[in-house]
Amino acid sequence: MAGDGEIVKIGLLGRGTVGGAFADLVAERADAIATLTGKRPQVSGVLTSSTGDYDEILADADVIVELIGGLEPARDYVARALAAGKPVISANKALISTYGEQLFAASDDSGAPLLFEAAVAGVIPAIRVIEESLAGAHIDRVHGIVNGTTNYILTEMARNGLSYAEALGQAQALGYAEADPTADVGGGDAAAKMAILARLAFGVDVTLDQVTYEGIENITAADIAYAREFDLVLKLVGTAERINGGVSVRVFPAFLYPSHPLASVHGSFNAVTVESPSITEITMSGPGAGGIQTASAVLGDLVSILNDTPRVRGDGAPVEIVKDVESAFYLHLEVEDRPGVLAEIASALGDQDVSVRNFAQRTESAEGGSGQGTDEAARLVMVTHRTLESKFSAAVDQIAELSFVKAEPRVIRVIEEEFVD
Amino acid sequence: MAGDGEIVKIGLLGRGTVGGAFADLVAERADAIATLTGKRPQVSGVLTSSTGDYDEILADADVIVELIGGLEPARDYVARALAAGKPVISANKALISTYGEQLFAASDDSGAPLLFEAAVAGVIPAIRVIEESLAGAHIDRVHGIVNGTTNYILTEMARNGLSYAEALGQAQALGYAEADPTADVGGGDAAAKMAILARLAFGVDVTLDQVTYEGIENITAADIAYAREFDLVLKLVGTAERINGGVSVRVFPAFLYPSHPLASVHGSFNAVTVESPSITEITMSGPGAGGIQTASAVLGDLVSILNDTPRVRGDGAPVEIVKDVESAFYLHLEVEDRPGVLAEIASALGDQDVSVRNFAQRTESAEGGSGQGTDEAARLVMVTHRTLESKFSAAVDQIAELSFVKAEPRVIRVIEEEFVD
Repeated sequence: MAGDGEIVKIGLLGRGTVGGAFADLVAERADAIATLTGKRPQVSGVLTSSTGDYDEILADADVIVELIGGLEPARDYVARALAAGKPVISANKALISTYGEQLFAASDDSGAPLLFEAAVAGVIPAIRVIEESLAGAHIDRVHGIVNGTTNYILTEMARNGLSYAEALGQAQALGYAEADPTADVGGGDAAAKMAILARLAFGVDVTLDQVTYEGIENITAADIAYAREFDLVLKLVGTAERINGGVSVRVFPAFLYPSHPLASVHGSFNAVTVESPSITEITMSGPGAGGIQTASAVLGDLVSILNDTPRVRGDGAPVEIVKDVESAFYLHLEVEDRPGVLAEIASALGDQDVSVRNFAQRTESAEGGSGQGTDEAARLVMVTHRTLESKFSAAVDQIAELSFVKAEPRVIRVIEEEFVD
Repeated sequence: MAGDGEIVKIGLLGRGTVGGAFADLVAERADAIATLTGKRPQVSGVLTSSTGDYDEILADADVIVELIGGLEPARDYVARALAAGKPVISANKALISTYGEQLFAASDDSGAPLLFEAAVAGVIPAIRVIEESLAGAHIDRVHGIVNGTTNYILTEMARNGLSYAEALGQAQALGYAEADPTADVGGGDAAAKMAILARLAFGVDVTLDQVTYEGIENITAADIAYAREFDLVLKLVGTAERINGGVSVRVFPAFLYPSHPLASVHGSFNAVTVESPSITEITMSGPGAGGIQTASAVLGDLVSILNDTPRVRGDGAPVEIVKDVESAFYLHLEVEDRPGVLAEIASALGDQDVSVRNFAQRTESAEGGSGQGTDEAARLVMVTHRTLESKFSAAVDQIAELSFVKAEPRVIRVIEEEFVD
């Protein structure tokens, strides 16, 4: 069955977990790929931190696969390969989200494609679907769970009542989180991926430094437990959306109602939902990490290159970044249980035109301090209707100043389902 | 912004809901598509049952879009367009699943592409992902909820306790089901789509008449309610899988555990899960029907054609169709509540090597006949481990003959999640 196929030589930069899995996968699938495309991929050179010479590898290769990560020397290597007219595949979200514009220009200049499906959402073909299936559609919004580590931690906190620290420790023990988990849990990794998705979905020039983001380090098991009263599920959600001619790209811990397509994405899985008037919405989900999965996404890009599949990527036009966006909010207050409290809170919200959608109050003996307290305390939990973030923040600042408010108000965004099935 | 673009003339066959939405979408998105591809699509001729002449439309068009449905004259029109070297886009699952081999050969002969994303799963880009992203992967199995009407009916039965007839009536009132719902509720529509997916995923020649299928007409609200004891959710699931060098393609009502990615697909949505060792699984979901959504999938194919995107579709190799496959099963028995019953049932199952995974028994006063009975009756509900269908059927046949079994045993397949997040 397998045609011999013209040999296509791959220069592989990096031979860690993903690089090793990719080399194995190329060997295993070379026959099938030769049958499909008439071309037989073969790893011709490998660059690691201790072995190989990039100039020699580049001179010999037909395609460069960059799996070393980080900004330099990855940027230099990729730029030189593109300048030499050699197609490049990268799984490096930091590189693409930071130097995308420069590298796309280099790709346009020489005509050598730059593909990076593996940089965004693991095995989920989000880039291909946006660039090809939806090339003719007007995309309004993209929501994504694009970091498997944080989704694993939040899932464990919700399922098993673990604290953030316990769930993080478990993720580290299982290899889902690194010893220094900052990039994952701080939201920076997800922010880089959302910058890439925003650029592709809207055809605008968005870079990582224009993404507002927040991580999950301050989420407590209590936040997750209390929100169950409203049937809410907590996820770290990236959102890219068009707003009044500009765009907003942001990553925040957010509550979802169970009917939202991202609410049932558990464990280390990733998912991306794309919304457009002509499609309603498409959601794609799959494993977000793992050497073999990332290698498989790289292999998909390789087949595209062997097959000369063109991309219809638009130019990255300049765009206004909108910072003050509308959202619904979850607000959790601990207050003294005395008359007039609710009226003052309602008044502060009303002053900023914030209206409440759901509200619950629980009165309980205060457990504060060393347990000596006997004061009655009340816990007020509410979800607002959509409101401008600036107005909600102003209302919360005012509430925080009220004398009967006993702890810092806890605020988490709520994403409402736009479409109902 | 919008380049003028070379005009590409579209001959549109059919101007019903989808055809009308497609014509509108082409007009609306022509500028954006011209910018992306350098070519400007324009509907140049429309054939309806009462107006237009196909020979003239074909002679004038650069691309034919077939939205008339059914086998003839659709097959004739598509074959003639391909023979004339003109690319064809079709949303016609009956056509592709019945005459796929013949039409693909015509496409290969003339080099004119035949695309049909809209024929399979509404807006979900299942074909593109299988043919492109996963072209280098070895796909083991595809599961799909590929009929929105039946998913709507089952969702309503589960959510609101409606009977099958009530839920069907509601679907008809809302336009989700046709006056003659046979193709949907009988499983034939889903079977045609699964034949197409199997062909693409495995590169083998599968036609509609090789798909085993069953519909949802005999599902009762009680089936759905009882299975809640085991936390099971009922869906009409299409499965295409490789088995010992052959393939099996089938559509059955099946129970899913809540962790299965298809279990949370509700209402008229469709979803497709693709499993491969190198990706674990990818699930895609979105609206399964609707004029604008189907038109949008057709537009995605049009952009591919304007963009000269090649397909790496393999030849349809002959393949053995495996009929006796392994599955887990749900078995519901109504029996007299007397000693020895359980032992005889266990013995019948054991004779066929069927082992039980979960079991529940409820004893209740018999409600049979006109309510005059005072016999004690028992309801036995169990889920088996995976077993060959032939062995399970033999066991059930034997059980049905036992004197204490008071009603026809109810059997529904159970799909277990292969991957755990």
